[in-house]
Amino acid sequence: MRKPIGVIDSGVGGLTVAGELIRQLPKEKFIYLGDTKRCPYGPRSEKEVRKFTWQMVNHLLERNIKMLVIACNTATAYTLTELQEQLSIPVIGVIEPGARAAIKVSQNKRIGVIGTEGTIQSGAYPSALKTIDQTIRVNGLACPPFVPMVENGILEGPEAEDIVARTLSPLKAMNHIDTLILGCTHYPLIKHLVQREMGGHIQVISSGEETAREASLILAYHRDLEAGNDIPVHEFYTTGDMEKFRLVADRWFDDPIQFLELVELEHVKSSAYY
Amino acid sequence: MRKPIGVIDSGVGGLTVAGELIRQLPKEKFIYLGDTKRCPYGPRSEKEVRKFTWQMVNHLLERNIKMLVIACNTATAYTLTELQEQLSIPVIGVIEPGARAAIKVSQNKRIGVIGTEGTIQSGAYPSALKTIDQTIRVNGLACPPFVPMVENGILEGPEAEDIVARTLSPLKAMNHIDTLILGCTHYPLIKHLVQREMGGHIQVISSGEETAREASLILAYHRDLEAGNDIPVHEFYTTGDMEKFRLVADRWFDDPIQFLELVELEHVKSSAYY
Repeated sequence: MRKPIGVIDSGVGGLTVAGELIRQLPKEKFIYLGDTKRCPYGPRSEKEVRKFTWQMVNHLLERNIKMLVIACNTATAYTLTELQEQLSIPVIGVIEPGARAAIKVSQNKRIGVIGTEGTIQSGAYPSALKTIDQTIRVNGLACPPFVPMVENGILEGPEAEDIVARTLSPLKAMNHIDTLILGCTHYPLIKHLVQREMGGHIQVISSGEETAREASLILAYHRDLEAGNDIPVHEFYTTGDMEKFRLVADRWFDDPIQFLELVELEHVKSSAYY
Repeated sequence: MRKPIGVIDSGVGGLTVAGELIRQLPKEKFIYLGDTKRCPYGPRSEKEVRKFTWQMVNHLLERNIKMLVIACNTATAYTLTELQEQLSIPVIGVIEPGARAAIKVSQNKRIGVIGTEGTIQSGAYPSALKTIDQTIRVNGLACPPFVPMVENGILEGPEAEDIVARTLSPLKAMNHIDTLILGCTHYPLIKHLVQREMGGHIQVISSGEETAREASLILAYHRDLEAGNDIPVHEFYTTGDMEKFRLVADRWFDDPIQFLELVELEHVKSSAYY
């Protein structure tokens, strides 16, 4: 029987990662779980994020997933190591794939990162980059206006361009980066605006694309790629408003979601089973 | 003590992969072994390639390497699965990383591959691509003039441009690919010529860059990244003419090679130790 791949996120942002996973791994079946009811995770304590993430993980483990993708920067920062150590399946986060892709393309080793305030303050990207190459210089910039802008569907036009220009101006002014990591799962939706504002000489990296690429490698490495050619029906679960979830998903995916269900996580065990 | 990473190749072509490994993993120490005396592997039988590859592998295993990179398309095609099954360390080839990178960037799922006649005839790239996504269409083209051109240092000018244009013309004429994989370790040296000839709308993928990226992930996945910050001295070994090896290496690397030694492989065991 086809074993699915689990994808967890604090809400709908991880759908950009799911979209890339589905595109790059079209034979695989995915189960997406977005904790929209308790979103955003950014301002929450580490303890709370770990608790909520374990609830999502334990819920998906009952579905016999063969791999777990944490499609949320905050949850990755707080729980990736712990989950990798405690689960018997491969676990992939969104931070390191973006970092490795940036190292691959950067020629001058000056890399920019934009994300939520939580992600930038956590220092997770500079840490991932410098673990590999300590000579890399990293410029981080928190972009608080971007998530509400994207969630409100403002993806084009003068207002969107103006917000992007004003928000990115400190990064444009101060440095000579040649590579910019989109360190938030919402940002791929405005990648074209960011690219235009920063200029064509800047390589813009979407963590979602890179995470899907690495998920593909890890599956192949474990000889666990799906061999069958049936078209899988992906399942989506949300802890919050289903209609809102469907609206966002329809905007982000080419095809409408076929399977969407409400799920409650409050009763699920919030620590490791093992 | 710092454990090195082994890189094997039929000759000097794998130095482009080694260069990318050194650039993307600057803390790691590499040991490169090029079987220049018995190069090229392309026209040899599978049995012979397997024998020679095992000799290189067994020679490097005595150096306690923590990972093995097969920087040669022919050797990858014939021995990757066997080596992955029989060695206790991670083994990475050059074919799948290029395939996964192409799947990531291609929008129309029409992917071109250029390589030696052996690589194109083996069907290894179409197989790697279709294992992941059977709807991908692959156009392969053998480019026999490219390796001698690169080895003779013809990397610019009218002669080089003319050879590239004539060789690639069937690929330009027949299809609508949006992505082209350089399926030979020599080709990154003429990537600029290939890009110019094919046009800016084609994404050109260097397997070497992608292999280094995946090596970085696999090391991180096994929590085996080098933590120290000493600048490593890489070691290069050749089975053939040392001066010729040094000449090519000096042309391909920014810094001169510090350590180069002759090695004999004929006496080395030519099958698995395990």
